[in-house]
Amino acid sequence: MWCSLFSSSTSHFTTIKCSIPSDNQEFKNPINGNVVKLDLLKSNNNGHHVATKTSFSPCDETLYNIPMSQIRQNIPTKKQLVDTYRQGIIVEGAYRQTVVIRSYEVGPDKVATIESILNLLQETALNHVWMSGLLSDGFGATHGMMKNNLIWVVSRMQVQIDHYPIWGEVIEIDTWVGASGKNGMRRDWQIRSQATGLVFARATSTWVMMNQQTRRLSKMPEEVRAEISPWFISKQAIKEENPIKIEKLDDTAKYVLSNLKPKRSDLDMNHHVNNVKYVRWMLETIPDHFLESYQLSSIVLEYRRECGSTDIVQSLCEADEEVLFDDVVDVDQHKRRISVLHGFSLASGLLEATGLLESFSQRPFSYTHLLKIKEQIKNEEIVRGRTTWKRKISSMPFPT
Amino acid sequence: MWCSLFSSSTSHFTTIKCSIPSDNQEFKNPINGNVVKLDLLKSNNNGHHVATKTSFSPCDETLYNIPMSQIRQNIPTKKQLVDTYRQGIIVEGAYRQTVVIRSYEVGPDKVATIESILNLLQETALNHVWMSGLLSDGFGATHGMMKNNLIWVVSRMQVQIDHYPIWGEVIEIDTWVGASGKNGMRRDWQIRSQATGLVFARATSTWVMMNQQTRRLSKMPEEVRAEISPWFISKQAIKEENPIKIEKLDDTAKYVLSNLKPKRSDLDMNHHVNNVKYVRWMLETIPDHFLESYQLSSIVLEYRRECGSTDIVQSLCEADEEVLFDDVVDVDQHKRRISVLHGFSLASGLLEATGLLESFSQRPFSYTHLLKIKEQIKNEEIVRGRTTWKRKISSMPFPT
Repeated sequence: MWCSLFSSSTSHFTTIKCSIPSDNQEFKNPINGNVVKLDLLKSNNNGHHVATKTSFSPCDETLYNIPMSQIRQNIPTKKQLVDTYRQGIIVEGAYRQTVVIRSYEVGPDKVATIESILNLLQETALNHVWMSGLLSDGFGATHGMMKNNLIWVVSRMQVQIDHYPIWGEVIEIDTWVGASGKNGMRRDWQIRSQATGLVFARATSTWVMMNQQTRRLSKMPEEVRAEISPWFISKQAIKEENPIKIEKLDDTAKYVLSNLKPKRSDLDMNHHVNNVKYVRWMLETIPDHFLESYQLSSIVLEYRRECGSTDIVQSLCEADEEVLFDDVVDVDQHKRRISVLHGFSLASGLLEATGLLESFSQRPFSYTHLLKIKEQIKNEEIVRGRTTWKRKISSMPFPT
Repeated sequence: MWCSLFSSSTSHFTTIKCSIPSDNQEFKNPINGNVVKLDLLKSNNNGHHVATKTSFSPCDETLYNIPMSQIRQNIPTKKQLVDTYRQGIIVEGAYRQTVVIRSYEVGPDKVATIESILNLLQETALNHVWMSGLLSDGFGATHGMMKNNLIWVVSRMQVQIDHYPIWGEVIEIDTWVGASGKNGMRRDWQIRSQATGLVFARATSTWVMMNQQTRRLSKMPEEVRAEISPWFISKQAIKEENPIKIEKLDDTAKYVLSNLKPKRSDLDMNHHVNNVKYVRWMLETIPDHFLESYQLSSIVLEYRRECGSTDIVQSLCEADEEVLFDDVVDVDQHKRRISVLHGFSLASGLLEATGLLESFSQRPFSYTHLLKIKEQIKNEEIVRGRTTWKRKISSMPFPT
C-alpha cells in the first residue's frame, strides 16, 4: 500500500465508467482528464476481489502504482491554475476561492460562526497546496516533506474579523504564503464580499516543520525550500509592529472548564484535536449573556504542544477589563458591585438607565485564554489565546 | 424592519461597488444581475449612519423596501435553472449540486462523516427551495407558508449509505420533493460519485407544516399546495414496503448518556437543536471500539417533539443483536461470557483465532436509540432512532 494514511479510507467498491487500462497503459483520470501511467503488477490472489475489465475495487489498489484514493481525490501532480469544482483560481501566486456560506455554517443569528470561518481558512490553505501540484498524501505536506517524514505544525495564528458573512452570501477567500524566519512559513488570508470587494476578515499564521516520528521541530530541508519558496509573496494580510504577548493564566483564573475530553468527531486527519475544537473549548468558558450581545472581532492563538485523543483538557479564561468594569459599574439596586461580564443582561438594563452603555459599547472587551493538559506535567500548555470582542451593532442603543 | 429573523445578522457596513440608485430607481443586484426596484424613503436622522452615493449601511435597511440581508443573500424571486456559485442546476424538477468533500468534513479516516452528509442534505434541500424562487425569509419556508405563519417540521428521515465519499472527492447530490399523504411532503436525495455515477447514498424524509405561534400541526393551505405541488415528482430514492417500527426504549437501556445540554453552537437558525446534533448525541452512546471497526450504513429517525435550547436531554441506546452475540461468543481464556459490543478489540482477536469473525462481519449490527427530555413529563420523547452498521472493509481479515 502506498500510504497507510489512506488505508482505512478506501473501503469502497468503485466502478469506473471509463475503459480499464491493460498492462502498462496510460489511464485517463475521469475527473480532470489528467493522464497517469499505470504499471500493472501481478494480480492479487486473495480470492475476494478480482480486477475485471469493468470494475475496480479498493483492494485492487495494490495492483497499480496509483492508489484508488488518489484517483478519487483527484490530486494533481502539476501546478493547476483553475479548479472548476472548487471554484478556485491562482492569481499572482495566491489562491482565490469563491464560496457561498452554507445554511449549516451559520449560527442562530444567520451569521457565519467563527468555527466555519476557521474551517474555511484550513480548507483554502489545503486547496492552495492542491493547486500547486505539491500535495502529497499527508495533511498539506509536500512531496519533499513526505520524503523527509515531515509534517506542518502551526505555531501562531491570528484572525481579525470586521464583518461576518451571512447565510447565502458569496465570499472570496484569498490565501498565500511567505517566508517566516529561516525555517518557517507564513500563511495569510483575506476574506471579502464577492459582490462589493469589502474586506470581511484577515488572517495570518506561522508554520514550522516537525519530524513525524521524533515529534521534534526540524529545519526546512533545501528540497522543501525549493518546492515552496517560488510561491512566497511578501504581502502581509495583517501587519503587526509589536505582536502582543499573551500571558500565561494559572489556576486562579475566573472561568475554568475542566475534564474536557476529545471525542472521535473532534479529531482531524492527523488524529489530533482539531484547531476549531480548541477555539470552541476556549469560547465555551465565556458566559452566554456576553456572547448574545458581543461578537468576536479578533483571536490570537499561540500553540505550545500537541493535544492527542487521550488527553484531558482544562480551559481557563480571564477577562482583561473586568476589574475596570467592576470599578465603574456600581449601580445595582442593592448597591452591590456587579460584574458586567457575569450578568450582562441585567447590567445592561441598569447601564442603559444610567446612560453609560453607549460609551462602554464602543470599546472592545478582551479575554485571555489557556488550554492545558490537566495532568501535573512540566509542559502542560496546549495553546494560549486572546480574544477581542465588540458589541453587535444590532443590539446597540440606536434610536429606532 | 421586514423580517425580525434577519435583524441580528445585518451588523455590517457594506459598500456597494455599483452605482447607488437615486429615488425610486431600479437597482441591479451585483451578484446575479437581477434588477430589483428600490423605493427610497426619507433618510434616517439617527446621526450614526447616513446613506451616501457610495455606501450602504445595514441601518439604511429601513430606507429601502428590500432588506440589505436579502440583497446579500441574493434570494431570487423567480425560478432559476442554474446557480453558478453553488454549482447547482434544475434537472427535470430535481435540484442537482456538485460538491467537493472538504478537509474538515472528513474524520480521522479521511472519509466524510455522517454529520457532514446530513449537513449536505439540509444544504441542498434549502438550495432547491432557493432555486424555485419560493424561498422566503424563514428556514426553507415558502412565501405562502410565511403568510400563513407556517414552518416546516420533519417527522421522519431515513438515510442509507453504501459508500462514503472521501476527502477531495467530487460528488453530485440530487434532491426532489413529492406528495406524502394529504398534508405532507416527501423530500428525497441521492448522492453519487461525479466521476463514475456510482450511488453512494440515498435518503428520504417526510415533512409537515406547523403553526409557528401555536406549535400545532397544520393542514397544507391551498395557497402553499399551489406553490409546491408543481415540483412534486413521484420517483422515490428509497422504497419501503413495510417501514420498520422503532421500539421505545426505557430507562433499562444498556447505554445511557445523561445531562446533555445544547450549546449555543448546537442551535440552528430556528433556535432549535440542530438535527446533526441529535445524531451526534445518539452515536456518542456507542462504544469507541465499535466505531473504529464499523461504519454506519443506515439511520432512521422518527421525530416526536422539538428540543429547545434549555432542555436537558438523555440519550438511550440498546444493541439489537447483543444477546445473540453473547450466546455465540464464549471463547475467552477464562471462559467468561464476552459481549462483543463491549470489548470488540479484544473479542475480535479471539474471534479471528476461532475463525468466526468473517462470518459475523458480513452481517450488520443494529442499535435502537432514543433521545428524550430528562424531566418527568408525558411527551418526553424527542426522537427515536435506529442505526445499522457494517464492518469497515479495510479492517476485514483479508490476507495481505
